[in-house]
Amino acid sequence: MNGRPSDVAPDSLLNLQDALRKFSAEREWDKFHSPKNLAIALNVEAAELLEHFQWISDVDSADLMPATRKQVGEEMADVLIYLVQLADKLDIDLTKAANEKLQHNAEKYPVDKARGSSKKYSEL
Amino acid sequence: MNGRPSDVAPDSLLNLQDALRKFSAEREWDKFHSPKNLAIALNVEAAELLEHFQWISDVDSADLMPATRKQVGEEMADVLIYLVQLADKLDIDLTKAANEKLQHNAEKYPVDKARGSSKKYSEL
Amino acid sequence: MNGRPSDVAPDSLLNLQDALRKFSAEREWDKFHSPKNLAIALNVEAAELLEHFQWISDVDSADLMPATRKQVGEEMADVLIYLVQLADKLDIDLTKAANEKLQHNAEKYPVDKARGSSKKYSEL
Amino acid sequence: MNGRPSDVAPDSLLNLQDALRKFSAEREWDKFHSPKNLAIALNVEAAELLEHFQWISDVDSADLMPATRKQVGEEMADVLIYLVQLADKLDIDLTKAANEKLQHNAEKYPVDKARGSSKKYSEL
Repeated sequence: MNGRPSDVAPDSLLNLQDALRKFSAEREWDKFHSPKNLAIALNVEAAELLEHFQWISDVDSADLMPATRKQVGEEMADVLIYLVQLADKLDIDLTKAANEKLQHNAEKYPVDKARGSSKKYSEL
Repeated sequence: MNGRPSDVAPDSLLNLQDALRKFSAEREWDKFHSPKNLAIALNVEAAELLEHFQWISDVDSADLMPATRKQVGEEMADVLIYLVQLADKLDIDLTKAANEKLQHNAEKYPVDKARGSSKKYSEL
Repeated sequence: MNGRPSDVAPDSLLNLQDALRKFSAEREWDKFHSPKNLAIALNVEAAELLEHFQWISDVDSADLMPATRKQVGEEMADVLIYLVQLADKLDIDLTKAANEKLQHNAEKYPVDKARGSSKKYSEL
Repeated sequence: MNGRPSDVAPDSLLNLQDALRKFSAEREWDKFHSPKNLAIALNVEAAELLEHFQWISDVDSADLMPATRKQVGEEMADVLIYLVQLADKLDIDLTKAANEKLQHNAEKYPVDKARGSSKKYSEL
């Protein structure tokens, strides 16, 4: 965390990670934050996010009421918070991992084969 | 997405969002990516992450074998990818939402009341 | 488990519970089967079930290919297996709990108010 | 559903299935109950179940407070309700599927190899 320039991007995950460390330390919550428990908490929040889409159509899900959209944003924030905390505990660089995964997916799903298909790579 | 400085941080989520837009557009996958479906996909990946912690203890979850840790990182990458795509579709600023949520949690869980407790704020 | 009539229904959950007890005992798996771990496993299987519906429409989900329907049935079996094991550990009578919940829901969602609406009872 | 003897076991899933059909029909909720939506609802309830175990230890999860245990039972009831409704829509015999899965697992995890191990069958 050291040596980071002070002019980090406003969407920096490292900034968030720092703030979450401070938040947990102040409350002595680290003892609850085993990777296993954080993975559980992440799943609970992911499901609370999903709950908002439970009975609505695909089309309606793209046109949420403002109050629902706000709640959805808060559930997404919770997912990100636990994801960043878990990454911190396991010393995983999240954005690096995501960019590598995307590169990997680009190889698994070549444009000419995958275009317009929702098939798994193993079935293409 | 406009007006963003070219010197964005390497952990920028907006960079990842741009790359994911390009990836989906090239494969014509946007038609599958309703917010509802992205929320489902996020849950599926979150559970694949959780699967790695299924039968192990809290203590062992903090000391994963290198191969497991690598797989866990890949599942976390998948969660982040769907989270960023969903945020893009719903026009939600993820890091802003997370920082606001953290501020909100700081009020719900004052240090003196929450210290060392895993109780819900409503039970403090 | 005692005193159960020998002519139990073929769809008896108690029969299944007995078989699962025997299965776990023979493999010495009870040490892994804390309620917490069983709840995790149940969620992992529920998500594997959901994965089959990930990119398909509501309409298509009611008309699965035979091979997919078979796999879906197997994931549902896994969910039921963990649900029955968890109920056994916590000494919960599953079908009784479900029938009571249904009775409770009937009061929360009176026919004349709930007809045709997917709103939560608190919003009716 | 026809031809079922009137003396079905009290833990019969078919009884529950009948009651759920009636419940949904009266409220005209079948239009919401696509298999896809039911699978989502099942996951949401499974996560509400998991939430109760989120920050507690394996040991404590086997010794819940009575009020918590009651809530856990209600979440498990919800999971069973959606599981039975999904099985009804897809015409899947749940207990038969579970018993077949158990038989299948007995072959995948032979007693002498699986004893005391939480490894996946592919790693035994």
